[in-house]
Amino acid sequence: MLDTKVHAYLNDHRDRHLSQLVELLRFASIANNDDDQCPLCVAWLVEYLSEIGLAARILPTDGKDMVFGESPPKPGRPTLLIYGHYDVQPPDPLDQWTTDPFDPTVRDGNIYARGASDDKGQFLLHLQAVEAWLQATGDLPVNVTVLLEGEEEIGSPSLEPFVLAHKDLLSADAAVISDSAFFAPGAPSILTALRGLAYVELTLHGPKADVHSGLHGGVVANPVNALAAMIGAMHDGDGRVALPGFYDDLAPPTEAELADWQALPFDEADLARSLGVAALGGGERDLPPLVRAWARPTLDVNGIIGGYTAPGAKTIIPSSATAKISMRLVADQDPQTITDGFRQFVHKHTPVGIRAEVDIHSTARPVLVPTDGPAVQAAQAAMTEAFGRKAVFIRCGASVPVTEVVQRMLGLDAALMGFGLPDDNPHSPDEKFSLEHFHKGAIASAAFLGELAQRLR
Amino acid sequence: MLDTKVHAYLNDHRDRHLSQLVELLRFASIANNDDDQCPLCVAWLVEYLSEIGLAARILPTDGKDMVFGESPPKPGRPTLLIYGHYDVQPPDPLDQWTTDPFDPTVRDGNIYARGASDDKGQFLLHLQAVEAWLQATGDLPVNVTVLLEGEEEIGSPSLEPFVLAHKDLLSADAAVISDSAFFAPGAPSILTALRGLAYVELTLHGPKADVHSGLHGGVVANPVNALAAMIGAMHDGDGRVALPGFYDDLAPPTEAELADWQALPFDEADLARSLGVAALGGGERDLPPLVRAWARPTLDVNGIIGGYTAPGAKTIIPSSATAKISMRLVADQDPQTITDGFRQFVHKHTPVGIRAEVDIHSTARPVLVPTDGPAVQAAQAAMTEAFGRKAVFIRCGASVPVTEVVQRMLGLDAALMGFGLPDDNPHSPDEKFSLEHFHKGAIASAAFLGELAQRLR
Repeated sequence: MLDTKVHAYLNDHRDRHLSQLVELLRFASIANNDDDQCPLCVAWLVEYLSEIGLAARILPTDGKDMVFGESPPKPGRPTLLIYGHYDVQPPDPLDQWTTDPFDPTVRDGNIYARGASDDKGQFLLHLQAVEAWLQATGDLPVNVTVLLEGEEEIGSPSLEPFVLAHKDLLSADAAVISDSAFFAPGAPSILTALRGLAYVELTLHGPKADVHSGLHGGVVANPVNALAAMIGAMHDGDGRVALPGFYDDLAPPTEAELADWQALPFDEADLARSLGVAALGGGERDLPPLVRAWARPTLDVNGIIGGYTAPGAKTIIPSSATAKISMRLVADQDPQTITDGFRQFVHKHTPVGIRAEVDIHSTARPVLVPTDGPAVQAAQAAMTEAFGRKAVFIRCGASVPVTEVVQRMLGLDAALMGFGLPDDNPHSPDEKFSLEHFHKGAIASAAFLGELAQRLR
Repeated sequence: MLDTKVHAYLNDHRDRHLSQLVELLRFASIANNDDDQCPLCVAWLVEYLSEIGLAARILPTDGKDMVFGESPPKPGRPTLLIYGHYDVQPPDPLDQWTTDPFDPTVRDGNIYARGASDDKGQFLLHLQAVEAWLQATGDLPVNVTVLLEGEEEIGSPSLEPFVLAHKDLLSADAAVISDSAFFAPGAPSILTALRGLAYVELTLHGPKADVHSGLHGGVVANPVNALAAMIGAMHDGDGRVALPGFYDDLAPPTEAELADWQALPFDEADLARSLGVAALGGGERDLPPLVRAWARPTLDVNGIIGGYTAPGAKTIIPSSATAKISMRLVADQDPQTITDGFRQFVHKHTPVGIRAEVDIHSTARPVLVPTDGPAVQAAQAAMTEAFGRKAVFIRCGASVPVTEVVQRMLGLDAALMGFGLPDDNPHSPDEKFSLEHFHKGAIASAAFLGELAQRLR
């Protein structure tokens, strides 16, 4: 149970905490914009961290600055690393916002602004929990370090070198990252896995220039035909990926996880409707959708181009064709093994008269966080207490690169407490964050600090 | 044997005939250019036809004018329709021409200009043969009508309505079309078949907008994956087209044709080298290249596009994907039956969660000209006489729509006497026409008139 004084403090200061969020959301801290307000936002955050009692400083990178803070160190206590990102997605298209994306507005129990849910609201609530402990009790259950990044929305290019250079500073016993959402309203959720990625570009070359499909059709191998056939062969008739060794290293979800997922309020027809399709599809036909999205790897063509694509008709055999292909990976698939298998497959399926070229764009390892670790257990207890409903373990089909970096480089299984809602529009117009979730999230975070201290003692 | 007076006339007037070709080639008669010189070219042709003794006039269409001419009618004699086109391909890229495309220049026994081989040189030689007969003997072996089109290079959009409206005027006993080439230098050739075409556009629709491939990969059918799989399934492992009924109506080439083709000077490695590929490919693996290109139908993707195609990576499941697909048809395939089969195939192979859309761009029937008809026999005898080498029957993988129109609407199997050479660059910079072929072509045409009269008597 959360300390009553801390709980009371958070209740008493709810309005002021909202005002602080409004201030923070006013900064147009867009990482890929030269004329952005990241420096102003960083200055505000450093001052804010100091005010709540942390030693705060700016740590530069080759890109945007990191904001770093730490509580007064108490030897012998475990340390929690709180990660967040202060940069936000660009607000375009501006004309689709009901109110200005950088003029935060409260409507219907939500605050609307770019960054409200992703990620300013979600990391600020942790800092308010820290403040509440310090102000209400004069102490913290655990030592706290805070790392606020400014490049998450552009792929965190400076994160890995930064972590490598500051391993000692960032060393901790647990980590918490809140950059996700409830599975549904009323279903507080903790992510336990994120998929990895292997993104490749495959180009097939045929004749040195486009040639006449009448004169040469049937005589010259057509790179688009060949690319289509090759991609077609990458799945078998059951929707399974046919690359060599693709399923060799899969760690299946536990029986408990599968049972939990089955109990989630998921409606296949609703999702199909929201996506504008007659029915869901893709993936392995014999598995339920959540299993396919969370616990199975996929191979999707993200883009394809070759030959004549303007309106009308042109009768050519194109000189080349290219596909961008991403494979989502799950534990314990290794991106290197997967891309090796991809190359082998391409080599084997390249027909006479065609030359194949494979480029690896990027790879990311999948993340699997054991549900029985102290941070995850503490997070579940704290969210259950704060929201009055048992927090569930879910997964996510996407990637959150920092989670993998923290796991691989710092050895920490992060508690991925998600306080957003599925309709928060994190990368779209009218991004919002629930005021109730903002407040109860701070209570959950405060409870988490206490639960974590007990489990790590 | 050609009448010696006619032969002598053509030899005596060789220089003047070349001057006339130079005049004709000066017109930039480009059909798809608003500011073109088609009207000037038409006026020149009408005057020219009148000078050589034909009744000439302009017949308008919704597009470019037709030039029409007829010899003084002699009742009881068979009539030959001579087709040609006075429009030319655009000359771009201009900087790759050695000399100005509309300033005809003689070099190394060739005349260089846009339209030299395609088709001004090739139809003018027939008119010079008519002139030679009239001037040297005062008579023609057959009645002659001449139809010169101005829209061949843009797909002859006005031709079919024109022929329909002027069936009586165009009624004839034989037709000759010279808009093709020798198989190789020293191999005078007559085309006996052209492939038809069924050009379709296939679009697969998935989610109503691009969606996140991490969140939704494996749950939503991917239209690019589906399109690739569908196209891949359109060929079997032996390179045969797998559409239903695709091969039902094929008329195989005769044993004589196959033997002739085998004797042609064709080198597979040379063709591969010229196209910049390590080896030929495509089509049915167990058949020789000339059979594949001339006597077998094909299915080629001419263009494909879907999803993210700019540089770099984007992780989306695209909303849709489109392919332009052309099928080259051979006798007796019916384009309607083929496109019906295509639709059936698409319907059957459309996976759950995908909606398919098929548009038919255009169709053209294949043409097969019997080698034992009077016009073709006369053409073979005449070309053999003029060039001193036995003229061979070859086919062409491309389409020449007028041939099909003349066959279907006027009931005429045209003699497709080709006087070009394979390196004439008909749609490229430095288009040329051999002066020897221009002269001997006129002799061949004059001989053809005599041979035809004998066979149609």
